[in-house]
Amino acid sequence: MRYSLWMYGGAKECEVDVERSARGQAGRHGLISEVARAAQVSVSTVSKVVHGRRDVGEATRARVEALLAEFGYRRPGADPGRPRRFLTVFRDLAGPYTLEVVRGIVTGAAEAGAHPILGMTNRQSISRWLDECETLDAAGMILVISMLAEQDQQRIVEQHIPVVLVDPLSEPVIEIPSIGVTNWKGGRTAVEHLLELGHRRIGMLAGRPHSVAGAARLHGYRAALDEAGIAVDPELIRSSDFDFEEAVTATTALLALPQPPTAIFAASDEQALGALEAARRAGCRVPGDLSVISFDDTAVASMTSPPLSAVRQPFEEMGRVAVRTLIQLAEGKAPPTSRVELATRLVVRESTAAPA
Amino acid sequence: MRYSLWMYGGAKECEVDVERSARGQAGRHGLISEVARAAQVSVSTVSKVVHGRRDVGEATRARVEALLAEFGYRRPGADPGRPRRFLTVFRDLAGPYTLEVVRGIVTGAAEAGAHPILGMTNRQSISRWLDECETLDAAGMILVISMLAEQDQQRIVEQHIPVVLVDPLSEPVIEIPSIGVTNWKGGRTAVEHLLELGHRRIGMLAGRPHSVAGAARLHGYRAALDEAGIAVDPELIRSSDFDFEEAVTATTALLALPQPPTAIFAASDEQALGALEAARRAGCRVPGDLSVISFDDTAVASMTSPPLSAVRQPFEEMGRVAVRTLIQLAEGKAPPTSRVELATRLVVRESTAAPA
Repeated sequence: MRYSLWMYGGAKECEVDVERSARGQAGRHGLISEVARAAQVSVSTVSKVVHGRRDVGEATRARVEALLAEFGYRRPGADPGRPRRFLTVFRDLAGPYTLEVVRGIVTGAAEAGAHPILGMTNRQSISRWLDECETLDAAGMILVISMLAEQDQQRIVEQHIPVVLVDPLSEPVIEIPSIGVTNWKGGRTAVEHLLELGHRRIGMLAGRPHSVAGAARLHGYRAALDEAGIAVDPELIRSSDFDFEEAVTATTALLALPQPPTAIFAASDEQALGALEAARRAGCRVPGDLSVISFDDTAVASMTSPPLSAVRQPFEEMGRVAVRTLIQLAEGKAPPTSRVELATRLVVRESTAAPA
Repeated sequence: MRYSLWMYGGAKECEVDVERSARGQAGRHGLISEVARAAQVSVSTVSKVVHGRRDVGEATRARVEALLAEFGYRRPGADPGRPRRFLTVFRDLAGPYTLEVVRGIVTGAAEAGAHPILGMTNRQSISRWLDECETLDAAGMILVISMLAEQDQQRIVEQHIPVVLVDPLSEPVIEIPSIGVTNWKGGRTAVEHLLELGHRRIGMLAGRPHSVAGAARLHGYRAALDEAGIAVDPELIRSSDFDFEEAVTATTALLALPQPPTAIFAASDEQALGALEAARRAGCRVPGDLSVISFDDTAVASMTSPPLSAVRQPFEEMGRVAVRTLIQLAEGKAPPTSRVELATRLVVRESTAAPA
């Protein structure tokens, strides 16, 4: 079905698909088909122009751009009066870390007048969500997932889908902006705190293998020991995948060493909880017999027995920056840098003390 | 600006506001104004008809309904092919309970092919969110908040805004469906577990005063003691507002009694964490000197020292039922009942044992 349409700015007349146009996003697709027909190019070519790709000839681009303007096409996020929706997709919604990130993003969205639609990948590919991003007419996506498959990275870059990564585990391609914290410096700060208390034999519950954040925290641990002139003992470093149960097992093994550590740096709150539980099972008091310092400082860190000393990630600020960066991308502006690292800070509670 | 419009099903021609129509929801408002003008009634009358209110005369209703159909008005959620958005608004995004509810709703939404937009009230009125529900063309709202102001309840009922409450603290008006769990039975089950272990002097960390869920859990505690022929000692019941710090204080007071309890039933995981910390400070071992049982069983309950025995709320099922009920409401179907209570179940871990 067709109707005559006088566009926003002028008095041009054209035809678009009514049924689709009256239904929001679907209208955008209908409109793109119309533009493709009018410009005598494929839908994919119009899509390339819309997403700012360079592999379209100058003459074609100019013709398509003119028709898009004539047909009243508006890029998502370009209209300040319109509600800005974006997707926020998590690997899963488990663990204390996730809730803090959710809160950060909801807070950042409220401040920016934007609305986050929440989803989960359940550890599957995000390709379905990249489709949804189009279908839902979302301005883009904030991804809080561990791994980004190569073909998804490629699609994001080639199709210029506005995407921001929060604390990705693997190093993303340079073109996709990511927000994280100063993991290396935070790790160093945690261990420096233990060194200042007088600890010399310090264990490390390292994060997921191949995780960028986990590796940075581990190197921070190494750096602090190096600076204090203490040789790194590989036996004291246990990988435990940011996981509670693995941390219980790893801490139990550390405490059973002929020369057990007097303090442990856990790469996440969930691992620190595991360290506390392993200490309890071993009849080892915290901090009397063992100091434990954590990384994250989610809400639960102040509710453990004893409350955890921890390096705090600025979750709300991460959410704010992620939302702001996404909106910039959706408006076609390049972010000033592809990687933002926010500062961490030390919060001392009751799980750390001088060695006995 | 105007255009001629042949509607979905037929060949009727009418005029609507182009700029608004081409922009999704705004178009719905523009369309409602147009219908009001054509029917020579107020926008508010059209809105009443749209929301199924009864305070509109039959003749007016019929005229407006006919014009709405003619102008192609589609009620939110009425189109199965269109993405179904709904709002989920939390009082705050803090505490382990909240993340479980978020996961439940995201899971339920995915199963229903719907998309949850997340928001927070920051303990303020939800009236802004009721406006947003219209602006965002959302099918309705799931509210996870403690209190619902009377004027907001009235607005929801009068304007037929599809709203589902999750575990409201206060008894809502009968017309607003709510989802919760069998709090009374769950409370009774928790205390029966302690009684079976041989405890006779059992303390209670009760929830927020005036909270329906909290009161039901407290009455479950009373019922279990009554059935066991144990007189309820008011000194053993301490209100602590579902809060960690208040639970630390309350437990400390209980442990300082001339005849302290040998077991404590905490009305939430956050309070149980407070009980564990108070026990640690008092040099009291759990479960050797004191058993602690919790209510919620969020992810953190299995990560405490020791892991908590708890009454589990079926969070995913709550989310599923909330989303399904909301979609029914949005489609104009009345839910079979205005209050759904899902079953809880006992999960025994290491924080409960026979008294010394």
